[in-house]
Amino acid sequence: MGSFECTMNKSRYYNLHNSAKKNYISFLSRHAAVVISGAAMARQLHREIQRDVEELVAQGNMRPHLGVVFVGDDPSHSRISSDTVLRPSSVSQQELLDLIDKMNRDWRVSGLLVQLPLPEHINERAVCNAIAPEKDVDGFHIVNIGKLCLDQRSMVPATPAAVWEIIKRAGIETVGKNVLVAGRSKNVGMPIAMLLHTDRNHERPGGDATVTIAHRCTPRERLKELTSLADIIVTAAGVPGLITADMVKESAAVIDVGINRIVDPKTGKLRLIGDVDFEGVKEKASFITPVPGGVGPMTVAMLMKNTVTAARNALMH
Amino acid sequence: MGSFECTMNKSRYYNLHNSAKKNYISFLSRHAAVVISGAAMARQLHREIQRDVEELVAQGNMRPHLGVVFVGDDPSHSRISSDTVLRPSSVSQQELLDLIDKMNRDWRVSGLLVQLPLPEHINERAVCNAIAPEKDVDGFHIVNIGKLCLDQRSMVPATPAAVWEIIKRAGIETVGKNVLVAGRSKNVGMPIAMLLHTDRNHERPGGDATVTIAHRCTPRERLKELTSLADIIVTAAGVPGLITADMVKESAAVIDVGINRIVDPKTGKLRLIGDVDFEGVKEKASFITPVPGGVGPMTVAMLMKNTVTAARNALMH
Repeated sequence: MGSFECTMNKSRYYNLHNSAKKNYISFLSRHAAVVISGAAMARQLHREIQRDVEELVAQGNMRPHLGVVFVGDDPSHSRISSDTVLRPSSVSQQELLDLIDKMNRDWRVSGLLVQLPLPEHINERAVCNAIAPEKDVDGFHIVNIGKLCLDQRSMVPATPAAVWEIIKRAGIETVGKNVLVAGRSKNVGMPIAMLLHTDRNHERPGGDATVTIAHRCTPRERLKELTSLADIIVTAAGVPGLITADMVKESAAVIDVGINRIVDPKTGKLRLIGDVDFEGVKEKASFITPVPGGVGPMTVAMLMKNTVTAARNALMH
Repeated sequence: MGSFECTMNKSRYYNLHNSAKKNYISFLSRHAAVVISGAAMARQLHREIQRDVEELVAQGNMRPHLGVVFVGDDPSHSRISSDTVLRPSSVSQQELLDLIDKMNRDWRVSGLLVQLPLPEHINERAVCNAIAPEKDVDGFHIVNIGKLCLDQRSMVPATPAAVWEIIKRAGIETVGKNVLVAGRSKNVGMPIAMLLHTDRNHERPGGDATVTIAHRCTPRERLKELTSLADIIVTAAGVPGLITADMVKESAAVIDVGINRIVDPKTGKLRLIGDVDFEGVKEKASFITPVPGGVGPMTVAMLMKNTVTAARNALMH
């Protein structure tokens, strides 16, 4: 279940001590948010995946293998993989499609992903749709998107899958709860909204929550009205400081999917932050994920899990 | 643009005259909701579709033709069509798939739909996915669902398309507005939420609204909190009286997709009603669609429009 850190909310205690003594006892026992360690949860998940892999191998199957296709000259994009195929930015779309076709037919490749974004001269949608759906560990093939939106079993994109897994493993209730998702990207915000609002009794179970999808056209004051009603806030907007304590309902759960690179004013160095004002919000929320160390490590783990799923899919073909 | 009925809100005028005289002038000019006549709007749309059809024919093309497959023994299900193929409830799935395959390859069939629901022994999903996506006027093929959810041009299911068309033709603003969709069915509620929350600059333009998806797991009191914040309420829940005046914000637009058969307590006869308490809500809303005569006729028109689109698709193949 991962390990959680739990710290006392000192500033709250202080304020209440002075201004609302009759609530003293109940507030004294009120804690700041449980900080969900995605890193610890991911370690647990990696152990589970490892066990699944060993089980598959013990049954005489091939070890699951992820093939990654990377186009470009920027080596910083490299992602976990056992086998990365590099192509220069000048690669043609047809060369890329031929490569994918070859890897689709290669039985040694269990799962296959093409690192996005691709250079402008390549149609990303055509590339995503060229990957065999059963090997599509990113879940971006049109058929996997369609299945996801029809609540059928499918390869769920890793980041939405990570958010789902965090919510479930942390024991955060979703049925009949209000969820606000900030951000509507097709690989993160939209699938998260889909997972959380759908029926828990469908083939691919959903969260049965009431879900609001907000985005850059949502005026700030209306966003605040809606976040204030939310039991769970999931931010995937890429806007530092989007969610502040005054916008969050007491005891809400806050899952921060934002990854923003900023220059730290104190050190002058680049630093990763999320969309949530962590220090402020953790005093009010019941659960919160940090950035880094929250959704990120869980996303990597879910990609590995999808690769094992792809390996199992291959056994059934 | 269809014809709108606009009536004076007499009861409101009366109440205000007695209780809030200082607001008299502004409220005197306040009207009850514009009742959007879907029937009149659909007549206009049918004229436009007819013009498109004649243009196609004048260019030497075949007249668009809708093929409808109907399984079962209940003739009340028959829908507009120029050609209905009937099969008994005992038809096997394979016979049905063979029939669809034949119609897929028949160039005289522009658009093709299979009336749902199907008997229990038939896998509806397999049937929907057997229809050639470019002839799929119901928009239920997995690839059309996927494209819809990725904001790509696709065949949009007729009822969500009707809701979109009503909102646009009535001039109801959506960008940055709050929309509440009650109901999450895959052919109605979900696609409506998808159309309304997405980006207006994408290949298939969206409404850029902040969208909340509510459903039967949403507690009543929380539904009311959320409807009270909504500028547009779209109900597709199949629950008579779900939306009452006290839940609606002053001047909201209310689109009623519900179709419920009830026994009229006065006449003892079956009567169609929507999900909205029409008489109460029309005094508070700015726009409202009646049931019957609202979304229903527009749905039929959008199915015809999809058939013309399918005929155009065939020209490009």
